[in-house]
Order: sequence, then structure tokens, then C-alpha cells
Amino acid sequence: MPAARVATVNPVSDEAAPPRVAAVFADIKATKKIAFVPNFWRVLAVSPDQLELVWGRLKAVMHPEAVGRVSPLDALTREIIAVAVSATNGCAYCVNSHTAALQKLGLTDEGIAEVLAVTSLFNSTNALAEGYQIEPDVRPTTPGEG
Amino acid sequence: MPAARVATVNPVSDEAAPPRVAAVFADIKATKKIAFVPNFWRVLAVSPDQLELVWGRLKAVMHPEAVGRVSPLDALTREIIAVAVSATNGCAYCVNSHTAALQKLGLTDEGIAEVLAVTSLFNSTNALAEGYQIEPDVRPTTPGEG
Amino acid sequence: MPAARVATVNPVSDEAAPPRVAAVFADIKATKKIAFVPNFWRVLAVSPDQLELVWGRLKAVMHPEAVGRVSPLDALTREIIAVAVSATNGCAYCVNSHTAALQKLGLTDEGIAEVLAVTSLFNSTNALAEGYQIEPDVRPTTPGEG
Amino acid sequence: MPAARVATVNPVSDEAAPPRVAAVFADIKATKKIAFVPNFWRVLAVSPDQLELVWGRLKAVMHPEAVGRVSPLDALTREIIAVAVSATNGCAYCVNSHTAALQKLGLTDEGIAEVLAVTSLFNSTNALAEGYQIEPDVRPTTPGEG
Amino acid sequence: MPAARVATVNPVSDEAAPPRVAAVFADIKATKKIAFVPNFWRVLAVSPDQLELVWGRLKAVMHPEAVGRVSPLDALTREIIAVAVSATNGCAYCVNSHTAALQKLGLTDEGIAEVLAVTSLFNSTNALAEGYQIEPDVRPTTPGEG
Amino acid sequence: MPAARVATVNPVSDEAAPPRVAAVFADIKATKKIAFVPNFWRVLAVSPDQLELVWGRLKAVMHPEAVGRVSPLDALTREIIAVAVSATNGCAYCVNSHTAALQKLGLTDEGIAEVLAVTSLFNSTNALAEGYQIEPDVRPTTPGEG
Repeated sequence: MPAARVATVNPVSDEAAPPRVAAVFADIKATKKIAFVPNFWRVLAVSPDQLELVWGRLKAVMHPEAVGRVSPLDALTREIIAVAVSATNGCAYCVNSHTAALQKLGLTDEGIAEVLAVTSLFNSTNALAEGYQIEPDVRPTTPGEG
Repeated sequence: MPAARVATVNPVSDEAAPPRVAAVFADIKATKKIAFVPNFWRVLAVSPDQLELVWGRLKAVMHPEAVGRVSPLDALTREIIAVAVSATNGCAYCVNSHTAALQKLGLTDEGIAEVLAVTSLFNSTNALAEGYQIEPDVRPTTPGEG
Repeated sequence: MPAARVATVNPVSDEAAPPRVAAVFADIKATKKIAFVPNFWRVLAVSPDQLELVWGRLKAVMHPEAVGRVSPLDALTREIIAVAVSATNGCAYCVNSHTAALQKLGLTDEGIAEVLAVTSLFNSTNALAEGYQIEPDVRPTTPGEG
Repeated sequence: MPAARVATVNPVSDEAAPPRVAAVFADIKATKKIAFVPNFWRVLAVSPDQLELVWGRLKAVMHPEAVGRVSPLDALTREIIAVAVSATNGCAYCVNSHTAALQKLGLTDEGIAEVLAVTSLFNSTNALAEGYQIEPDVRPTTPGEG
Repeated sequence: MPAARVATVNPVSDEAAPPRVAAVFADIKATKKIAFVPNFWRVLAVSPDQLELVWGRLKAVMHPEAVGRVSPLDALTREIIAVAVSATNGCAYCVNSHTAALQKLGLTDEGIAEVLAVTSLFNSTNALAEGYQIEPDVRPTTPGEG
Repeated sequence: MPAARVATVNPVSDEAAPPRVAAVFADIKATKKIAFVPNFWRVLAVSPDQLELVWGRLKAVMHPEAVGRVSPLDALTREIIAVAVSATNGCAYCVNSHTAALQKLGLTDEGIAEVLAVTSLFNSTNALAEGYQIEPDVRPTTPGEG
């Protein structure tokens, strides 16, 4: 079944990629261990500067081992955040790609359901907290409260 | 200096709580192992029906052991999703309370920074994917691609 | 204690209002039957053009009787939508002013709770529908289904 | 014309529904007086726990008569809020299904236009109030102001 | 390739347009110097009142020369804002139509990339500022700081 | 009066800044030509890795001359986008800081009003386009249409 959405600029094919772009494409495939370049990166490649900036940040945040960084979160937790944010923003491309990443990491459909259950719950309570303009708690700080 | 945030309805105090509400307040303190009733629940108590509904769902999702449910996610991961959603929505009350929950669960400031780094990154890429109307990937499915 | 919210431009006082602005201020008080000019309009008055444009549209939509228009919705329903939208967007000023409008129209705290309960519910289900990328229903259209 | 969107998990068919799920499906059709199970619920059924939780809350909020609750809002007003929230969030599935519900309840196209006119207006004013960081009104409380 | 999205109400064709609507359609084509009436306006025409209100405001804001207004911003900057807002909200129709407007005004793909790079960056930093609940700066005001 | 906003983590003071952080702080002041380090960066400094990543991207996008990049947009347009995005997201800190940047660049209150007028207008039309699920235009492509 065909996708209806069409990008507003022309994605950069392998053939049309200048060396700077080709280098990033190769790094994406190597770092992510995938055999194709996702459309997201082909579209960003319209601006090689932006491609490098966004890929550089995503690589450092989501593939810390590739840059010698130690992350306090594991890969599954990071992708769970990606799905929670994408569902909250309603970003179709992002929901699709990060759910695929969760499935590749071994999360079951039940696990995905749990991620979305929590995401959904807090979209609900966020609207209540904002809708009532609820005041922040001043938490007891006397010894013994914990 | 102008007024800070004040809830649009009167929160329900312990003294004013009817039995149904008092029962939920007690359950909140027992389930969450806290010594006070957060403002969120005092405000929701304006409607005892809604208090029960929202607390019932939050208890089942966020405190599965209290209802005999086994969750595929652990408590820390669930609170991380709560912070990611609340930061994305810009809900001040929610950011405050769920960050406090993360801290209570032992997450360091560096860990919180990592949660927000990932949250921030995907708010960024969501805007790019939507701003370019990027088409979903049709992923290779030939054997060996995985 | 740090500063609370302060507008980024100087609101226009009655004394400083040029005739075009004063005319809108008077119309706002007369149309809304209030004795003060809300801060929202004093700030918009920085640009008399924009003040007229936004007030003109709001008057036509929210006070149809003032422009000889017949609305298919009543005033309470229109203000309920205002609160639902403002809670969803997390707009503090808007939640405060439109909740005050609901209270002025006689809606009880229980009624406000119901508005926010529905608002909150659909922020929750919206996140689920987007988080799963659920396909639109193709509804049965055979005779008798209705 | 085919839908482009494809859910990220497999919706649960009637044949594959375990008894807990089948019971909710039957309750949905009976409560909503419809002859089919909307995709939303078939997808949620991936997690029977979440299906029960979300349906339980939606039933209590949107079909109060089915649980012996008296709502301060009527069914049309509740669906109007659903459309206002869904339009604000840009949730395609939700806009479609709740607009269909409004049409089933007899709202004309002019009525739908009015709902969206109000929704649209307040998305506009929300952005202004936030964009200027407008301070909440301190309303006169002297006798006679009302 | 067919579009999957279908409007929830019937767009108004030229043949079905009553005189008020036909007049707005003609003004849209003349003001925007285009040979067709975009779907957005055909759908809004379901309510001639709303069509006139929204077109009147858009014409005054986006085509100031047509109403004898002098705008402090040029046409390109105004359309850039439109794309930034639409990308942030994830509005597919709006991203498509305002990107087309940017292209018609001569902005290159590299220019569009820059608009989205800035838009994306601030969606990222917005999430950080909200996620940490960062306090507004109290800026130095001593003489010489500037 | 309840508490105003307080960051959820402790901002890093000059005294507590390790060398990596101090270097970024110095670069921020030099690049932005300001005499203080905004709270945003002091809070991000909780994670020196993230501080470097976010500052690196912001510097490249918003201060292209500092990295030898030529941007197709000027500094004023870039800050206008920042305000448009921040107003749309309702980010208080961001609205404050980027409006201050606009004022420093010489934009008058009338200019700020125009930025928010356009921002507000498109938040309004975005909600309409999403609320009606309006189909993308298939634009005429015959020669002469242009």
C-alpha cells in the first residue's frame, strides 16, 4: 500500500551524494548496523552542514559507545523515550522508525503497549495539571519524612 | 511581583474530604509510601468520580504490584517516560513531581540530564520529520537484512 | 524567590491608549460586561492593528449576538471549548481567564471537573492513536447499519 | 482510496480475541450501539490490561448512564470537547472518529464549523498569551464588580 | 500517488458556492495571485461567516499591502514563521502549502533546510528549558553592561 | 504566595565549573557578546557532555560566522523563528530569552507584535487544517500557471 506523504524536498540518493554526505551515510549504516539509509537522513542531506550536526548529536546521544561515552541509560530505555516523545508529538515517521527500533531490540508487543500506556497516562495527567493550574507541592522536609 | 500559579478550584483538605475521597487519599499515601497527599490529588478530589477513575488507572499503570499485575517495564523506566512526556508538554507541576520521583528512585543528576538529552533530541528530530513531511521508510525485507 | 511571569512588552494603560485602542477597550468592556480591561488586550494593544483584528474575530466568534450572528453553539459550550484547548496547550493565562468565564456562566466546580475529565481523557487517547499509528476505520455502510 | 497509515502492532481480530478481550469488544458494541469494533480498540487489545483500563475510563467518562453516573455535561458537549482536543493535537484518527460521532448525534456541518472556529480561535490566542508571557489578571473584587 | 487524508466535511466547489463564498474565493485568487482555490478555503467555506473571518485576518496579516497596512516584516519572513509554526505543530497540510509558498518566493532547498534547522533546534531547547524548569535570567542592569 | 519556578537540578556556578564547563561558559559569553552565563547553560552544565553537544549545535546554527559557516538566513530571522517556536510550545524561559534577543537586535515592540501575529495566525489555521483533516492541494502544473 503506498505512502501518501511526500517529502517537501528531494531526498539525496547515493548517486547524488557528495563525499561529505556519503561519509555520513556510511557512518549511519555502520553505527546503526543497518543496510539502508533511512529517508530521514536522505532528506536532511539537502544541507550537508545540518546532516552532520544532527547526526553528530544523535550519534553521541543514542550510540554513546561509538563516541567513547558512557551513558547512564541503556539503549532500550533511550528508544523508549524516543517513542514516548514521538507519540506525544504525533510524529508519524518517528513513531514508525522508533517502534521498529524497539522491536529490533526485542521488546514485545506487550512491552510496546506498556510504553504507550504510560505515555498515554501522562498526557492525560499533564492536561489535568495544566487545566487546573495545580500548584507545585511544597514537600515536607522534616526528618523522618524521607 | 505578580501572582504565581494558583489552582482554579479549591483543593480538598483532609478535613473536608468525604469518606470516598478520604479512602483514595489513604490509598495514595499507602501505595506511594509518602506522608502527604500531593496537590494533584487534592484538586482532582473536587470530583470524587474523577479522582477514583484517574487514581485507579494511575495505580494500575504505575504501581502494578499493588494490583497484582506484572509490568514489562520497571518503576524507573516508567517514571522516565513520565518526565519525557511532561517535558515535551511543558507541564511544570508534572516535571517537578516526576523529577522528584526519579530522584527518590536514586537517579543522579547526570541520569536526569541523560533523560532530558534524549527527550530534547527527539523533540528536535520530530520537528524535522514533520517539517519536511518525510516519507516512512520501506525497509528491505530480503533474507540477511534482519 | 525568583520572578514570576512578566509580559515581554509593556501593556497599554488607559492613559496611554490612543483613540483607536481606547475604542476597542471600551467595546471589550461593553461586550463582555466587565469593569476592567484584561491584560491580554492591554498587551495586544502594542499593535493597534492586531488588537482590532484579534478582538474583531473573538467578538464575532464568542459574542455572536453582538454582531448579529446566530451561533449553533451556546455561550457555555464555547467557553468549554476554550478551556479544553487551553488545558491541552498548557496556557496558564488562558486557563485562568476561561475558567473564570465558566464560573461566571454558572458552571460548578463539578462541571469544571467534568470538562477537564473529558479533555484529559482525549489527550490520553490521542497519544495512543498516534503512538500506535492506528488506521482510520472504514465504517460499514450496508443498509441497516446506520 | 487506501489509507496510508498502518498500525505498528497487529490489531486483534474477533477470531484471535481471548475471552477477556471479547468481553470488552462486546461491551463496546453494546454501549456505543455500533455494529463494529473500531480499530482503536482492536489495537489496544494487544494488552488486555490496558484495553480494560482505557475502556473502563472512557466508558465512565463518555457513557456515564452505562455506569449509573450523572454527568453535568450532555453527550454532544462531551464529543465537542473530544473534537476540540483532537484538532488541537492534530490526531487524525481521533478527528475522524469524533467528527463522525458528532455527525451521528445530529450536529450539522455548520455546527462542526463552529466547534472548529472556537477551537481555532483559542489556539491562536493561546499562542499570543504564551508568546507575550501575559500576566494573569488580578480581578477587582470590590463590591459591585460581580 | 493518491492522498490518504479525506476532509471530514465536503469542500465547497465553485458551482456550489453562494455569492458571499464566491466573492471570497475570487479575492483569494486575486490577492494570492494563484489560479486555484486551495482546499483549505473550500473546506472553511462550509461556514461563510468563518470563511470571511479567517480570510479577513489572514489577508490583513499576510498580505498587508492589500489592506493598505505597512508590515515591519517582509513576505518571506512571514512565510518562514508559517513553516516554523506548522513544523512545530506537525500540520501536514500547512507544511506543504507554506513550503510551496517559500519555494514560490524563491527560497532554495538550502534555505528551507536552514529554516527547519533553526525550528528543530528550538524545539530541542524548549524541551530542555521545560524539562529542567529553568528559571528566567535576571539580567545585569548595572551601567555599562548594555 | 506559592513558589515560582525553580530548576529541578542545581545550576553550575562559575566556582563549581570544571575546566570543560568553564571553557564552554567562556565561549558562550564571547560568542554571544554577553557578560553573564544564562541559566539555561548553567543547568545544562550538570552534564558536561550535553552542554558541549547542545552548545555546539546552537553555536553552529545561530552563530554561523563563529564556525565559518554562511547561513542563508540573517540573525534577526533566526531569532524570529526561535520566538515563533517558543510561543507555539509555550516555553516561558525561551520566550523571555529570545524576545530579549530580538530587542537587542533592534526589533521594536511593533515588530515583536507582528512576529506574534503571524505565529498566532498559523496556530489558528493549523488547528483548522487538522480539525477538518484537509487534503493536500494538487496544484495545477500546466504551463503558464507558474
